[in-house]
Amino acid sequence: MADDRTFNAWAYKPLTKMQLTLREWTEDCVELDITHCGICGSDVHTMDSGWGPTEYPCVVGHEIVGVVKKVGKNVTKVKVGDRAGVGAQCNSCRECKNCLEGSENLCMKGIVGTYNARWENGDKTYGGYADRWRGDYRFVFKVPDNMSSAIACTFFCAGVTTYAPLKRCNVNSSSVVGVMGLGGLGHYGVKWAKAMGAKVIGMSHNDKKREIALELGCDEYLNTSDKEAFGAYRRQMTHILCTGTGRDFDWVTYLSLIVVNGHFINISIPEWNFPEINPFVFFSTQVFISGSAIGSPAEIEDMLEFASVHDVEPWIQTYKMDDVVKAIEDFRAGKPRFRIVLEN
Amino acid sequence: MADDRTFNAWAYKPLTKMQLTLREWTEDCVELDITHCGICGSDVHTMDSGWGPTEYPCVVGHEIVGVVKKVGKNVTKVKVGDRAGVGAQCNSCRECKNCLEGSENLCMKGIVGTYNARWENGDKTYGGYADRWRGDYRFVFKVPDNMSSAIACTFFCAGVTTYAPLKRCNVNSSSVVGVMGLGGLGHYGVKWAKAMGAKVIGMSHNDKKREIALELGCDEYLNTSDKEAFGAYRRQMTHILCTGTGRDFDWVTYLSLIVVNGHFINISIPEWNFPEINPFVFFSTQVFISGSAIGSPAEIEDMLEFASVHDVEPWIQTYKMDDVVKAIEDFRAGKPRFRIVLEN
Repeated sequence: MADDRTFNAWAYKPLTKMQLTLREWTEDCVELDITHCGICGSDVHTMDSGWGPTEYPCVVGHEIVGVVKKVGKNVTKVKVGDRAGVGAQCNSCRECKNCLEGSENLCMKGIVGTYNARWENGDKTYGGYADRWRGDYRFVFKVPDNMSSAIACTFFCAGVTTYAPLKRCNVNSSSVVGVMGLGGLGHYGVKWAKAMGAKVIGMSHNDKKREIALELGCDEYLNTSDKEAFGAYRRQMTHILCTGTGRDFDWVTYLSLIVVNGHFINISIPEWNFPEINPFVFFSTQVFISGSAIGSPAEIEDMLEFASVHDVEPWIQTYKMDDVVKAIEDFRAGKPRFRIVLEN
Repeated sequence: MADDRTFNAWAYKPLTKMQLTLREWTEDCVELDITHCGICGSDVHTMDSGWGPTEYPCVVGHEIVGVVKKVGKNVTKVKVGDRAGVGAQCNSCRECKNCLEGSENLCMKGIVGTYNARWENGDKTYGGYADRWRGDYRFVFKVPDNMSSAIACTFFCAGVTTYAPLKRCNVNSSSVVGVMGLGGLGHYGVKWAKAMGAKVIGMSHNDKKREIALELGCDEYLNTSDKEAFGAYRRQMTHILCTGTGRDFDWVTYLSLIVVNGHFINISIPEWNFPEINPFVFFSTQVFISGSAIGSPAEIEDMLEFASVHDVEPWIQTYKMDDVVKAIEDFRAGKPRFRIVLEN
């Protein structure tokens, strides 16, 4: 049977329905009939060429879940009929030190993005605003049976980006986790930290998110414009997960909220740099500052298991895939509470 | 018997032999006949009012070892005749969260320095360029029997400043530790990391220290001006201990030497800030950046035990206490290999 590589996608730019060609089939491939795809801020940045030039036509979407339609001979981790997903990374070099040590998400030759990148054979990678996806099994994961596909898809980027560093930094029932920024990522941060047993402090730069923070499960709320309110939290948080910050960020103020040997974890990508650090700040706080890049395949597996066991349920809003233009408009307007999922 | 509080010191400024008055005696006090005192960069900074105004007369020196001459009724950790030492901190509030949790070195009310500070009763604190020292037992530690006093005194500041973060960040026989800067602190870093079983890469900004680095025990040497040499170390170090750096420091270059989830630990105090951090650097490296402040009493105890068991022997040069003026001149000229110790 001839390999049917034609698929339907919403491709940019502008966002238009068109037919494109899936990558060449190999025995390492998995093909999905896409049922769901989350909308990530990266999709919009890439459509806008915000992180460098985008090679059009580009099919974005890297929170993909679908039903496995076809697997190559080398594939054992999923089988036809399974629900499976793929996140922001679809390949790595498999040879560098980081890949060999299980940190494929930090591949030293650069990760292969699920869109706007190239497979090793030169074929373009295409994301999930489409009806089909095809790619290497190494970055495809079975969705746990007790998890809806609409929920599951969002775990593959927003989920693991927030889960991996909290897990890595040992958030547990003794932890007090401040979550800076309560948008798409922050809301996952709250959900994970609560499921890990921590006390959670929602943090945002005004009072608009206070109510929804508590509704999400935050135990307390800190308006970061209210400098007086900081006093009560001095050296109280074991972790801060920074998912968003303003230009007025300063190290002393935020690190002073964190306990000795606690963690400041940045996963936000502001359009500006984090400020200079006075060397005395390192001494006087004794806090670990780090960041995190999506998550490795092992971390994705671990997250899916954790979410399944702890029934972690992010708040999502679904749109029909054919309403993607409207969905992106709403996304740009900051309307999602907290993640938009496109459904075929 | 009247309390004899008069002691002889080399006090600033200028550095002159004079008689001053020890703090008032309490039953929490330990008094030492000082036998040895190391010269720390902080001594010179303080004499120069480099970190803010110094209250003269000031007796610097916070790597003090002596023989216990007198103890208060509340003191059980040392007894008359013991050899004991005190480091850069001589008191803390004992009430704040950090003190109560054993991080007295990060006392939230500010640590009380062994010189140029005040005891809780208002008496001045005086350091170790003197014949006697008197202070609270909580920051006095018994010197292990198998350790010379000349060696021991240097552990109380330079030693613990380098030991504590390496221990805290779990340096062990699987570690590869880069030590940036091979001066007073860096040389301790090398000694500790080797004793912990690590492979050690000495790092300095030219080739002048190559030979001595290897003599100190470094397994390899990286001239940080040779950007080509960095390639071989990409993602190879589990830890970097930064004890000195230049204005050309940049995050990407140095963090790229460190393995995923490795540590960049800064204990240097350059006269400039560490540069801005591009948010992508957090993601692409996934390294923990931290600093460290001397060490807690528990860390000092732990260090003394470790040094005793592992026979850690820093390189010191001794001068007579009465030659302190010459010793400071030599210190300022960068002559010590690697620590100067004054002997009474």
